[in-house]
Amino acid sequence: MSAVLANKIRIGILGASGYTGAELVRLLARHPQADIVVMTADSHAGEPYEQVYPHLGGLNLPGLVKVDEVEWAGVEVDAVFCGLPHGTTQEIIAGLLHQTQHSVIDEVLRESPGDAAAAIQGTPRIIDLSADFRLDSTDTYAEYYGHEHYAPHLQPEAVYGLTENYRDKITDARLVACPGCYPTVAILALAPLLQAGKIAPEDIIIDAKTGITGAGRAAKAANLFSEVSEGLHAYGIGTHRHGPEIEQELSKAYGDNLIVNFTPHLAPMNRGILASCYVRLAGGASVDDLRDCLAARYSDEPFVRVVGEGIAPATRDVRGSNHCLIGVFPDRLPGRAIIVSVIDNLVKGSSGQAIQNMNIMYGLPETMGLEQEALFP
Amino acid sequence: MSAVLANKIRIGILGASGYTGAELVRLLARHPQADIVVMTADSHAGEPYEQVYPHLGGLNLPGLVKVDEVEWAGVEVDAVFCGLPHGTTQEIIAGLLHQTQHSVIDEVLRESPGDAAAAIQGTPRIIDLSADFRLDSTDTYAEYYGHEHYAPHLQPEAVYGLTENYRDKITDARLVACPGCYPTVAILALAPLLQAGKIAPEDIIIDAKTGITGAGRAAKAANLFSEVSEGLHAYGIGTHRHGPEIEQELSKAYGDNLIVNFTPHLAPMNRGILASCYVRLAGGASVDDLRDCLAARYSDEPFVRVVGEGIAPATRDVRGSNHCLIGVFPDRLPGRAIIVSVIDNLVKGSSGQAIQNMNIMYGLPETMGLEQEALFP
Amino acid sequence: MSAVLANKIRIGILGASGYTGAELVRLLARHPQADIVVMTADSHAGEPYEQVYPHLGGLNLPGLVKVDEVEWAGVEVDAVFCGLPHGTTQEIIAGLLHQTQHSVIDEVLRESPGDAAAAIQGTPRIIDLSADFRLDSTDTYAEYYGHEHYAPHLQPEAVYGLTENYRDKITDARLVACPGCYPTVAILALAPLLQAGKIAPEDIIIDAKTGITGAGRAAKAANLFSEVSEGLHAYGIGTHRHGPEIEQELSKAYGDNLIVNFTPHLAPMNRGILASCYVRLAGGASVDDLRDCLAARYSDEPFVRVVGEGIAPATRDVRGSNHCLIGVFPDRLPGRAIIVSVIDNLVKGSSGQAIQNMNIMYGLPETMGLEQEALFP
Amino acid sequence: MSAVLANKIRIGILGASGYTGAELVRLLARHPQADIVVMTADSHAGEPYEQVYPHLGGLNLPGLVKVDEVEWAGVEVDAVFCGLPHGTTQEIIAGLLHQTQHSVIDEVLRESPGDAAAAIQGTPRIIDLSADFRLDSTDTYAEYYGHEHYAPHLQPEAVYGLTENYRDKITDARLVACPGCYPTVAILALAPLLQAGKIAPEDIIIDAKTGITGAGRAAKAANLFSEVSEGLHAYGIGTHRHGPEIEQELSKAYGDNLIVNFTPHLAPMNRGILASCYVRLAGGASVDDLRDCLAARYSDEPFVRVVGEGIAPATRDVRGSNHCLIGVFPDRLPGRAIIVSVIDNLVKGSSGQAIQNMNIMYGLPETMGLEQEALFP
Repeated sequence: MSAVLANKIRIGILGASGYTGAELVRLLARHPQADIVVMTADSHAGEPYEQVYPHLGGLNLPGLVKVDEVEWAGVEVDAVFCGLPHGTTQEIIAGLLHQTQHSVIDEVLRESPGDAAAAIQGTPRIIDLSADFRLDSTDTYAEYYGHEHYAPHLQPEAVYGLTENYRDKITDARLVACPGCYPTVAILALAPLLQAGKIAPEDIIIDAKTGITGAGRAAKAANLFSEVSEGLHAYGIGTHRHGPEIEQELSKAYGDNLIVNFTPHLAPMNRGILASCYVRLAGGASVDDLRDCLAARYSDEPFVRVVGEGIAPATRDVRGSNHCLIGVFPDRLPGRAIIVSVIDNLVKGSSGQAIQNMNIMYGLPETMGLEQEALFP
Repeated sequence: MSAVLANKIRIGILGASGYTGAELVRLLARHPQADIVVMTADSHAGEPYEQVYPHLGGLNLPGLVKVDEVEWAGVEVDAVFCGLPHGTTQEIIAGLLHQTQHSVIDEVLRESPGDAAAAIQGTPRIIDLSADFRLDSTDTYAEYYGHEHYAPHLQPEAVYGLTENYRDKITDARLVACPGCYPTVAILALAPLLQAGKIAPEDIIIDAKTGITGAGRAAKAANLFSEVSEGLHAYGIGTHRHGPEIEQELSKAYGDNLIVNFTPHLAPMNRGILASCYVRLAGGASVDDLRDCLAARYSDEPFVRVVGEGIAPATRDVRGSNHCLIGVFPDRLPGRAIIVSVIDNLVKGSSGQAIQNMNIMYGLPETMGLEQEALFP
Repeated sequence: MSAVLANKIRIGILGASGYTGAELVRLLARHPQADIVVMTADSHAGEPYEQVYPHLGGLNLPGLVKVDEVEWAGVEVDAVFCGLPHGTTQEIIAGLLHQTQHSVIDEVLRESPGDAAAAIQGTPRIIDLSADFRLDSTDTYAEYYGHEHYAPHLQPEAVYGLTENYRDKITDARLVACPGCYPTVAILALAPLLQAGKIAPEDIIIDAKTGITGAGRAAKAANLFSEVSEGLHAYGIGTHRHGPEIEQELSKAYGDNLIVNFTPHLAPMNRGILASCYVRLAGGASVDDLRDCLAARYSDEPFVRVVGEGIAPATRDVRGSNHCLIGVFPDRLPGRAIIVSVIDNLVKGSSGQAIQNMNIMYGLPETMGLEQEALFP
Repeated sequence: MSAVLANKIRIGILGASGYTGAELVRLLARHPQADIVVMTADSHAGEPYEQVYPHLGGLNLPGLVKVDEVEWAGVEVDAVFCGLPHGTTQEIIAGLLHQTQHSVIDEVLRESPGDAAAAIQGTPRIIDLSADFRLDSTDTYAEYYGHEHYAPHLQPEAVYGLTENYRDKITDARLVACPGCYPTVAILALAPLLQAGKIAPEDIIIDAKTGITGAGRAAKAANLFSEVSEGLHAYGIGTHRHGPEIEQELSKAYGDNLIVNFTPHLAPMNRGILASCYVRLAGGASVDDLRDCLAARYSDEPFVRVVGEGIAPATRDVRGSNHCLIGVFPDRLPGRAIIVSVIDNLVKGSSGQAIQNMNIMYGLPETMGLEQEALFP
């Protein structure tokens, strides 16, 4: 593995006008091995990017075009980030991979699954930030997203892009489905404990609080400053789409199907998710055992840090950074524990993790371009 | 009961320079039967009140004096609100009641407990906003507040001032201990359900989120704008002092001792508490039964409203008002439900409830001076 | 003048779903002489009001209807508040007055202008919160609002509703055009000084900062929490529509046409406008003379307060109240002064001032329903 | 000039527990040529840095010590950043330079001022972020800072660290006095225009709005979240200490003494300063001439960008970055213009500019370690 590529990775960003798109640009602009060559944004096509995002001025970025108007044949692109609205990505990716001979690749992959690296030569690899390929079950997808899956043939090869858990598969993947922001923060906190049998699979309660950027930049009255500031509320109670996604991955960690409570809340801030996870101890584990288990699991991870006893992670500790901080606390209720986990929803919860995946897909150091400290205050 | 008193209630406010003091002034200034005659504030003694709180200018308020320098003998005061820091109230109230012949009163009360009204003739009645008399057990008080109780002889007569639950006792009380902000929002949501046997007493989880005003106006670096804005964190995990207070009252409602999880979080806003309560259904109750139970319990209450199915209460719905809104939701986890409850911590969670208590102590309509709608945005 | 009417004022609110509409409801709901009988909101017609504004639940309000569907003939309405988007009000008011025999009234008014009170018997009186009738010159209106005036025949009778300056005319007016939020805060600060010749008419610079509620509740990406929070910028520099409105009124105060700099800025808060006015002393006046002049002018005004030397008014001092605070300061530049003025844009800058006008139109005490203190924090 | 030093610059940070200290750490931690070897913080001495600033965990930083306890003789330090409270820096720097043979250096400098580079061999060079050496006149210092200057002998050699204006002097300086945040944003906007004679020196009005981080991390009630959020006010009107600093530098640019209005306001946000500068055109210049003049002046500057006609810079465009954006606008008042300028007060207004100075002091590319884009939202 070499830390320096002969040529920079030529990157396309589909949906560059959303917040996740802007965050990709912010981070990739200083990534030493990345070169942004295509940027799409249907509603802003034709505008200079710094008109859409003045904080990203002076970067010599390509002009914004409509996604339908990209002539992929003529563009040399190595990696495509999809930050498109949920539901539109499946067809676009299917088309994109088709245009780049995915049938050939599929065949190679079917015959020699271990030889993905060879198969995808000359094909752009997809790092999807939408929800379109996160769920293994296309039925569950249809139930929660309100329409049938438009590219079910691609779902089997999609790799769930929680880097820490699927690093090996991501390395060779052609299509990485980056996790939702809530699933990222919840799974990092709970999966190792379920896997180790240290917490019970029943009655796991995940009370999550997020900033508003997760709702995107679309003009909705509910997201106005006047509506969001100086207030807090729960939403999607019992029905949020990230519920089944969390269950899918925690079930894998546990080894059997489980159901969790997942209750998101909106807090008046821009960035950050904090998940308070209420769990029952299992297998004779103590609260300290839980902390030790997590600390051991993440000791070699560059972006996940288990904080010491008594330290409460805050979302502001990770604002703008790719870090996840996890703390473990005793409960007043005997036999139970509380796991508190925080990330920046736009970085580790989205664009940062996507770049983390790109780094390992291209043999780069995993932290490249993601070394920035959090911005505080 | 007459809605109009012959004379206005003459009111003393001890600790008028804190936020709860200012909130008392804001509300009492327009209360048609209240007349503020004494205001103490040790650190600001001698200053005009509008220098301390410019938003309360032009109200013809009495000057601020030190609490030690009030000559109670010469002041005609009917009701005293204590907004002093926790721990200082016990001795001051003991002294105050002593100066006003509390021993005599105690004797009367001991002999004919039903005749409180007569006993307290000529004595100021105390409405305490501190935590000093909330806990029945002085041992629990000592454990959680770090010092022995300084007026244990008064604890037995203190009435817990959650108006909806103790209306009758408050009517005749000489000393009302207004609940903490978290206990108010949690008990209103859960006590009727425990009392009716509709939820199980085990594993009740109360994940609460508050604005910063609950922390008061004292200069602490942790409460600076730069430290609080754009972030969220849990604190006092497993150890917060409101835990035992909630348990005390929920245990009474249930009829036996119970323990709950109570986990407070700080959100970047001024006012508001939202409690997300995760409970297990009991006695064959459905989620709708829970909603019906609460709706029936509060149908005649002027300040507590159970919202309809699917409506999520938000703290901004009650900002500046004395209302509590409660919503009930099904959980993804079978056999469980989620109760979401909101109040303004400075109003229903403190000064508003204190005035609500005053109103019933003096035979006034319970809503007098508290009719204001919430301020939004 | 009687403080109590035989019957409550029957009120219609056109455009009740905007923030100014909600603020009218908040204040009128507790106004002892007001009875809301009609509420229109085109986009929310048919919804219960508390679904649109949950903080205003439980008030027994009339249902929302479309403005076109109100059958004015069958509704007994005394006063109509118009909180409609700019540009739509002119035709609606013209139609409304027509339906209620405005031609007759016009005739009476033309013949005996002093006898407005008689003329408007039985006709609803209009209190307009839009910009549609604020500018005396329909040419200036057309220039700044991008279309010709749709009811030029009504403009001459419209009374500019800055209560403090036009109290007498408002008393008898059929159509009151309430000032913009910026003009309110600027004119209150500067008009008396120009009138008294204590400041020069040249080079008046009004640097104003506002919260976001002035932008209304319409879904615009620029007003999202993510776009507004943690940032500040100027807008409408040199071109904002409130510029000519301020000049119109300051010119009247000065006695000749003048031009001012008016530069608005958006700050990350909900309510409040602060205007920093930079002026040159004239007529030998000192900075103290300016303060004295303003203090004398407003000594009998219930809602305008000139603060003492060295005290800097803050928007939070008037949040939710109908007050205007004004401070006067020396400049580093010799021969100049700084006037700082604050209001809540939704109250004194809009709905509160509208109710203040209603009170004097109906012979009620000017402060009725507007006595609330500011809400802080 | 070489972009890579043989050895990294060994850096001391005095006052590392303040926000400017934390910002230095944030930026220097990823600076490829910087190595932090000493960090002082009197109140937090002995604590690990990540306890003081959890967002800067895992960086292998030196422990915090008291400034008095640093044994400079034994520490090899090349550059010292002073982020100490105003007033304490003068003596500490005097002592520090004394301990490191400043008398020898002074002598060399006196005899061959051009040979600073040689003179300061082996001596730490000082980059001061406090106000202690910004004012040329120690009398003015005494007047505005309330005490005599404690190191007047050092003042003559202090170089005012506005990089764009004093690049050459900074290269060889032993003591760089970084500008205040307000002066930075104001001088960058106005100095070239005064120097070119395009604006008049009279009646320059600088209305500035800042976030709260400029007030530091000290526990003051006025800076609590509850006091700052949802409000805006002016402060230090006519008296702020940055007034004379701005005048000093603008006078130099103009070529004669001038006085300006400088009026700072506090807005409810963490980072950012926006200055709205109201100026009179001079020398026949048009508004476009002003824009052209500034654009020409800054065309080669990496961190200062003049935005196009009609674009209003916002503080959020530069949050976390070292950039300054400047826009020029016509005024309603004829013959006048408005210059709007924004920076992040903690970066270009403080720590970023300090590092920019360090880079040129040590022959590094000026942008090294400062390439980060702004963080938005």
